[in-house]
Amino acid sequence: VASDLIELERRAQELLDPGVYGFFAGGADEEVTLAANLAAWTRLRLRPHVLRDVSSVATATTLLGQPLPTPFLVAPMAYHRLAHPDGEVATAAGAARAGVPLVASTQASVSLEDTAAAEPEAPRWFQLYVHRDRGYAAELVHRAAAGGYRALVLTVDLAAYGNRLRDVRNEFKLPSWLRIANAADRFNDDDDDPVSIASQFDPGLSPDVIGWLRELEDLPVVVKGVLRGDDAVACLDAGASAVIVSNHGGRQLDGAVATADALPEVVAAVGGRAEVYVDGGVRRGTDVLKALALGARAALVGRPVIWALATGGAEGVQAVLDGLRAELERAMMLCGTASLDALTPDLVVR
Amino acid sequence: VASDLIELERRAQELLDPGVYGFFAGGADEEVTLAANLAAWTRLRLRPHVLRDVSSVATATTLLGQPLPTPFLVAPMAYHRLAHPDGEVATAAGAARAGVPLVASTQASVSLEDTAAAEPEAPRWFQLYVHRDRGYAAELVHRAAAGGYRALVLTVDLAAYGNRLRDVRNEFKLPSWLRIANAADRFNDDDDDPVSIASQFDPGLSPDVIGWLRELEDLPVVVKGVLRGDDAVACLDAGASAVIVSNHGGRQLDGAVATADALPEVVAAVGGRAEVYVDGGVRRGTDVLKALALGARAALVGRPVIWALATGGAEGVQAVLDGLRAELERAMMLCGTASLDALTPDLVVR
Amino acid sequence: VASDLIELERRAQELLDPGVYGFFAGGADEEVTLAANLAAWTRLRLRPHVLRDVSSVATATTLLGQPLPTPFLVAPMAYHRLAHPDGEVATAAGAARAGVPLVASTQASVSLEDTAAAEPEAPRWFQLYVHRDRGYAAELVHRAAAGGYRALVLTVDLAAYGNRLRDVRNEFKLPSWLRIANAADRFNDDDDDPVSIASQFDPGLSPDVIGWLRELEDLPVVVKGVLRGDDAVACLDAGASAVIVSNHGGRQLDGAVATADALPEVVAAVGGRAEVYVDGGVRRGTDVLKALALGARAALVGRPVIWALATGGAEGVQAVLDGLRAELERAMMLCGTASLDALTPDLVVR
Amino acid sequence: VASDLIELERRAQELLDPGVYGFFAGGADEEVTLAANLAAWTRLRLRPHVLRDVSSVATATTLLGQPLPTPFLVAPMAYHRLAHPDGEVATAAGAARAGVPLVASTQASVSLEDTAAAEPEAPRWFQLYVHRDRGYAAELVHRAAAGGYRALVLTVDLAAYGNRLRDVRNEFKLPSWLRIANAADRFNDDDDDPVSIASQFDPGLSPDVIGWLRELEDLPVVVKGVLRGDDAVACLDAGASAVIVSNHGGRQLDGAVATADALPEVVAAVGGRAEVYVDGGVRRGTDVLKALALGARAALVGRPVIWALATGGAEGVQAVLDGLRAELERAMMLCGTASLDALTPDLVVR
Repeated sequence: VASDLIELERRAQELLDPGVYGFFAGGADEEVTLAANLAAWTRLRLRPHVLRDVSSVATATTLLGQPLPTPFLVAPMAYHRLAHPDGEVATAAGAARAGVPLVASTQASVSLEDTAAAEPEAPRWFQLYVHRDRGYAAELVHRAAAGGYRALVLTVDLAAYGNRLRDVRNEFKLPSWLRIANAADRFNDDDDDPVSIASQFDPGLSPDVIGWLRELEDLPVVVKGVLRGDDAVACLDAGASAVIVSNHGGRQLDGAVATADALPEVVAAVGGRAEVYVDGGVRRGTDVLKALALGARAALVGRPVIWALATGGAEGVQAVLDGLRAELERAMMLCGTASLDALTPDLVVR
Repeated sequence: VASDLIELERRAQELLDPGVYGFFAGGADEEVTLAANLAAWTRLRLRPHVLRDVSSVATATTLLGQPLPTPFLVAPMAYHRLAHPDGEVATAAGAARAGVPLVASTQASVSLEDTAAAEPEAPRWFQLYVHRDRGYAAELVHRAAAGGYRALVLTVDLAAYGNRLRDVRNEFKLPSWLRIANAADRFNDDDDDPVSIASQFDPGLSPDVIGWLRELEDLPVVVKGVLRGDDAVACLDAGASAVIVSNHGGRQLDGAVATADALPEVVAAVGGRAEVYVDGGVRRGTDVLKALALGARAALVGRPVIWALATGGAEGVQAVLDGLRAELERAMMLCGTASLDALTPDLVVR
Repeated sequence: VASDLIELERRAQELLDPGVYGFFAGGADEEVTLAANLAAWTRLRLRPHVLRDVSSVATATTLLGQPLPTPFLVAPMAYHRLAHPDGEVATAAGAARAGVPLVASTQASVSLEDTAAAEPEAPRWFQLYVHRDRGYAAELVHRAAAGGYRALVLTVDLAAYGNRLRDVRNEFKLPSWLRIANAADRFNDDDDDPVSIASQFDPGLSPDVIGWLRELEDLPVVVKGVLRGDDAVACLDAGASAVIVSNHGGRQLDGAVATADALPEVVAAVGGRAEVYVDGGVRRGTDVLKALALGARAALVGRPVIWALATGGAEGVQAVLDGLRAELERAMMLCGTASLDALTPDLVVR
Repeated sequence: VASDLIELERRAQELLDPGVYGFFAGGADEEVTLAANLAAWTRLRLRPHVLRDVSSVATATTLLGQPLPTPFLVAPMAYHRLAHPDGEVATAAGAARAGVPLVASTQASVSLEDTAAAEPEAPRWFQLYVHRDRGYAAELVHRAAAGGYRALVLTVDLAAYGNRLRDVRNEFKLPSWLRIANAADRFNDDDDDPVSIASQFDPGLSPDVIGWLRELEDLPVVVKGVLRGDDAVACLDAGASAVIVSNHGGRQLDGAVATADALPEVVAAVGGRAEVYVDGGVRRGTDVLKALALGARAALVGRPVIWALATGGAEGVQAVLDGLRAELERAMMLCGTASLDALTPDLVVR
């Protein structure tokens, strides 16, 4: 049952090495924000309409002008090969069949070229960490453009690496056969520690980095990791095309506000100037509906995709995304909303 | 002990097939709304009056002009024969002895004619799902009128069937001996899946359906499944005589607002133009008292009736309804309120 | 350790027959109000002063003009002999040694005359249920006056008997050796059921009963069971000298507001015209301090006295009351308040 | 792992005598405030900034004009030798290596002279209880000045000794080999009971004591135990240089407001006239960041230092303080704040 994510995660946990499971499942420190993300969606209550014609409901939308069948994105996540031997290739295949763009990670375990080649027609975006070595960052941007990635998702909430206690307790290290595929030999020497790998990212970024990226290639820049209205405005002023309200799935700053709680502030500050997406704890069709009602244009789904990949490969990924679409359609029908445009803030109450 | 519903449900659970128990007890998805319904009544606190003459307390009322001894209705529920071999016939008998109108379900396991014949003198209402096949819907309305049903309860919160995880996990199907008695052979071919049965209901309804029903027969239309003030007003404008604040017992849209929380908004919007009823988590006399204090004119009781039916047949049903009346009387005495008119909003505080 | 009431109750529970323990410990229905009483005091937080001279703190006060060493009363409770063979005689002795007035119950297991005779010099009040048989009620008032009781505590929250599920489940009945001592043979025939005994109380009372009592004897009338400001004012207008904010220890109307939550409203409505006392969940010196800060003049302590009586007789009762006084003194010192007058509302925050 | 304090406490609990563990870990009565302190920091949520240059973050500050590498102080705590044979000497060594001032306790198990001699160059403050014997209090002040202590931390929330139930249940007494080192023979005769020892402190203090202390020596007076704005102002008016928002780690008045909840009121009342510090439940770098964002200039850390001392001596103390600094640095980076000045109230939301 694709909609039964608790069961899906349980099966993934059985299959995966405990360290790998902890790496994907865990959050920073005491996992306060990890839990808060989930709880914040749940706490929002729906005020559904009745007696509205929902004989057909349409989940179609556009993101950055690109038509898509659903308002979903697969969130960028590192090292899919930890979950499944085919890694990002399988994720890309499953996402493509579901019509959901994959946001491929800088830290992927399959190169961005190989991921693109696996599903050449599928929509895809590229997630970028900007390294201290700006030459490498620029190389990634050029390769992403050449590889048909249609947007850059700039992650900005990793100025330091979160203290992920599960990894500390599990003494989690990357296996020797897994390296950062995009980096070739560049940073892969002997490094098997995600913490030290992350130390290569530049903690000295300012909004100017957005303009720098836009000059490198003609790709829209989506800033991921925004939790405040003023920061969102600063990103847009610097040239961003969209922002993602995110706390990195609770993996970075423990105690950061839940994304469902931060979303209204960001939407209000952006004021329609740009698209706003959200991730963090999105597990159900009703979560997506709530997010869109509060003004998000799309939701990114992370861990459920990994559990689906681990347990079912490409088919599993497709199933979980198709299931989420079915859930969204049912939620829309039960809310009396036939299209995404009908999702207004008054559907949600705290 | 009729008032000890936890024990009553425990005994019913022992008697019933696990799939059947799950079908009646369960809600949609993670059952957030199922639990919220119960919690919302509990969270309301009472501000009782003292030193008021309650040497006699009167629970008598009228619903749609019909005099009744208590402000209770038996909520429409499908397939009573799953709980007891006599099914709706026994429920009707117990309800009749308690003076509580039964709202017979479209999906009943005894035909509306047989249910009426069992207790010809008892007040009864008919719950209607409007099928895509409007001819069948019209047929049901005419049969209900002919059968002495005094109101149509139009359920509007089933544009899609809720994702009832207990049923999914139990792979619950209707037993071969049980069919939808009102439909005769019409939809009963080989279908044993409540989900596909529900797909026959029309998801394209608008408030116009109320006017259509009123032209078919001279029966008041009560719209069940309203959770918003604006929808309630739209129903009344379209000709409804009353609305029922309901989220289908938490079985449809998980995350929907608890009925006790939605009730004040609906009462305020209706502004005395029509009667407002409520269901969802009503388990105690104090719950009914709170509902009436907040402006409801009656409360519908669902699952407790099924547990009573399963464990005690008609006698059990009567006992649980008589017990609820006794609880309401005691609650009124302890609140210093001798009549239902004395139940004012200031008796309740959050 | 007198201050360690959890341990005290645990020991009492070991000693007492389960039915007796349940009778004293339990509340009505699901015991929502029983738990809420305790939680409401705990939820209030203190804003203590520092650097105020508390080298001596005074807990002395007057209640209805009577000087007392502490702002405590022993709450009226029925049938002390269920807890200890000496019953109310032992309670009276312990209370007298602690300087705390006992409020003797109409339903006592020792007659009001014998209780008075046990401690002739001790301050004592009499709790009155007004029976349907007004002659008996009048007789009790005259006997109380003759017995040196200095106030009548009129209980008004028992128009019906609460549904005490523990007693129902335990099939609790009064033992044959125990009868209502004040009633002699009057109501003691074969009746061993607290529910039917309570049915003798008049549910038709109005505030006029206060005037009737005042004409019988020159005793101040304290109305117990008030949870609303308007009711408190009505009592005072009818001649009451004080009110007790009480929900009968959660034993009557389950779902009634916690007394700590009702207290500020009653204090505000009374506006200094009369004394206001409070009971319900008072277990600690800080609870008393919070009650007085919110405007109560005294707090009644119930169940802890019974646990002390059961485990230690008169000495136990004295110890628990002395312990509460020590706790209040410590709480006053730690709040920088040397006298009860210094207990102001700004010491408490929600 | 220094940042994993739950594990650190667990190991300390294994090593320590249960009575000693309870003495350090416990709070007053039901430990409501002990738990509330922790919960209040957790409940505050962070609104981090992104895309701000945090390639270097500075935790340096000044306290009372003294430059320090971090905004931390080791909270005054009694009897370190209960946790480790070297007691305060080891704590002082660890704190010195971490650059954190130790606030040595009046009730230390090593004399203030020996503690000073152990780390002559390290910054250190002296915590003072004012005894009824003012001569002894004055002697301590002169000795502290002579010993190079740079501030007096006047504890004002011990007018009575809190009812520490763990100690009562454990019948905790000081071992015979441990005495109050600062008192020599003065109060050490046969007294092994912290309660009676504390009875030597003067409960009759007023703000005037601050002026008296300032005349004894030229040392700034920091008042510890303030939970209200009005009290803070009274302390400053009487000559205090700073206040510490503290409830004595939940060990004194159970039910006192959590320090994180009291802090904003005190900061607002002080209005920049003086420095405000805070302790109570500070366990994480994010707690310190929240405290400073709310206007505190420093945070005192207590129990974690004891667990570190018990498990690792001086090295353990250094490690836990260095770990806290690393956590603060990471939290600052993840909040986009390169210096303590950048920690503004809008970073925190309830």
